[in-house]
Amino acid sequence: MSILAVGSVAFDNIATPAGRAENVLGGSATYFSLAASYFTEVRVVAVVGEDFTAEHESVLQKRKVDTRGIEHARGKTFRWGGQYLENLNEAKTDFTELNVFEKFQPRIPAEYKDSDFLFLGNIHPALQATVRHDLPNVQLTGGDTMNFWIQGASRELRETLRLVNILLINDGEAKMLAQESSLPRAALKVLAMGPQALVIKHGEYGATIFFREGAYGVGRHPFRAPALPIEEVKDPTGAGDSFAGGFMGYIASQEKLNREVIKRALFYGGVMGSFAVERFGTERLQSLTRDQIEERFEVFRELTHLE
Amino acid sequence: MSILAVGSVAFDNIATPAGRAENVLGGSATYFSLAASYFTEVRVVAVVGEDFTAEHESVLQKRKVDTRGIEHARGKTFRWGGQYLENLNEAKTDFTELNVFEKFQPRIPAEYKDSDFLFLGNIHPALQATVRHDLPNVQLTGGDTMNFWIQGASRELRETLRLVNILLINDGEAKMLAQESSLPRAALKVLAMGPQALVIKHGEYGATIFFREGAYGVGRHPFRAPALPIEEVKDPTGAGDSFAGGFMGYIASQEKLNREVIKRALFYGGVMGSFAVERFGTERLQSLTRDQIEERFEVFRELTHLE
Repeated sequence: MSILAVGSVAFDNIATPAGRAENVLGGSATYFSLAASYFTEVRVVAVVGEDFTAEHESVLQKRKVDTRGIEHARGKTFRWGGQYLENLNEAKTDFTELNVFEKFQPRIPAEYKDSDFLFLGNIHPALQATVRHDLPNVQLTGGDTMNFWIQGASRELRETLRLVNILLINDGEAKMLAQESSLPRAALKVLAMGPQALVIKHGEYGATIFFREGAYGVGRHPFRAPALPIEEVKDPTGAGDSFAGGFMGYIASQEKLNREVIKRALFYGGVMGSFAVERFGTERLQSLTRDQIEERFEVFRELTHLE
Repeated sequence: MSILAVGSVAFDNIATPAGRAENVLGGSATYFSLAASYFTEVRVVAVVGEDFTAEHESVLQKRKVDTRGIEHARGKTFRWGGQYLENLNEAKTDFTELNVFEKFQPRIPAEYKDSDFLFLGNIHPALQATVRHDLPNVQLTGGDTMNFWIQGASRELRETLRLVNILLINDGEAKMLAQESSLPRAALKVLAMGPQALVIKHGEYGATIFFREGAYGVGRHPFRAPALPIEEVKDPTGAGDSFAGGFMGYIASQEKLNREVIKRALFYGGVMGSFAVERFGTERLQSLTRDQIEERFEVFRELTHLE
């Protein structure tokens, strides 16, 4: 089934202990779409500037991502520069140039209206809500957000959380959103804000999914997927969006949504996140094979599997 | 089979977001012994002062821990005071009074010489080495250490690491010991210092075991056990030692040491750590049943198990 992803397309300058890269194609919609494209049909809604060339667009098209929803605006594409120091889980932002992203008003092409799933990447929660309202018939909506909106647009975010079925955020965001230092208690509070399920991403430690009582008939126990300990993390940028792409992509590829599918989706999320960080930018996500993905899935499974 | 544990016995003053407790029985040897006592025969070597009463000793004896190796010295027992703020993984020390622990010279009673397993709790690495040399016939030695010794007694610690089969430390200690920010690379470097296996404890995210090439014939792939997301962590003190007690205790209870046993041991470590933090001090570890332990083991197993 098809997923529509809305989010950012960006050019990033990235410095990590492993090196640096400039003007690499990034953004939440890009990472999400590439990761999800290995599982299902993906359509993207985003905005780019005049510096976004046919060559850039072909990165998505080669993965059969439908790019008709990418709006080409006057001006420059969103740019971000940041560095990761010893703690690879946290980026220090050097600069943010919103450029064409500043006035982004997502428009859903008519051809996208029949999308089965929706992923609301990390953009202003009011825009996320607009997109969700434009697609009243989607089966399931996944969403992301960040500290910036939790602090700066909390009222709009509260509205959006009612429209999202599965929220995917990290530990720090969950604690900030719930104003609660215990992660499981934070999870309960976030679930009370609307979502049926909450995926909390723990970086190199994997991810946990918490369910609202009765959600999807999957039982109330949380489920945790470990991540692979990767020796060389080249560039953590986009790991979270790649996780979301693997997670949502796998769900969209299945006939049914049950506990086992959600559990496997959490593993596939970790798999795609682990590939993303092996190279700068989206390089690794551009040239994977389904066999490589299945192989790593098995490694992840073995990592915690008791006989 | 029997485990001899050497370490500290202490009285702790603890403040956490959930409350406070004063003069509670603690110390690495205490937590370890109580946790391991649910799996196998445990003997303890430690030092206490005149304030350590028969009632305190009975806490261990009720769990059938052999306390003949506890030396009663003149003066006061080791005391520690600390508080855990929002980040429950880290304690801020208010005071440390070494007292009788300052001149501790572990003496192994003759009745302990036939011990099958040895656990070197977190004491000066030179003392750890002495104990190990006094027990040349143990099948397997587990060991712990901390930042204080990594920085302040690195030469002695390097010696001790050659005498330890399985080292159990946390993320920060592993990175500091290896002077390496990537955890899997840090693991490789620590394994090159001596141990056949390295357990890195991730607090609420579980633990990972890394093996040296060829160690125990278990293959080189790491294994990871998740921890249970616990809603109310009352007191994190002793979680690591309780983990070690569950891990080593389960290994000592098994006929063979193979990959499956080590994997299960890692789960049992997490189980005992998760019980320890539910109450202040050792309260929860004093009154468990094997059924409760098995029940939680199943919850942990389900937490990551794919069909």
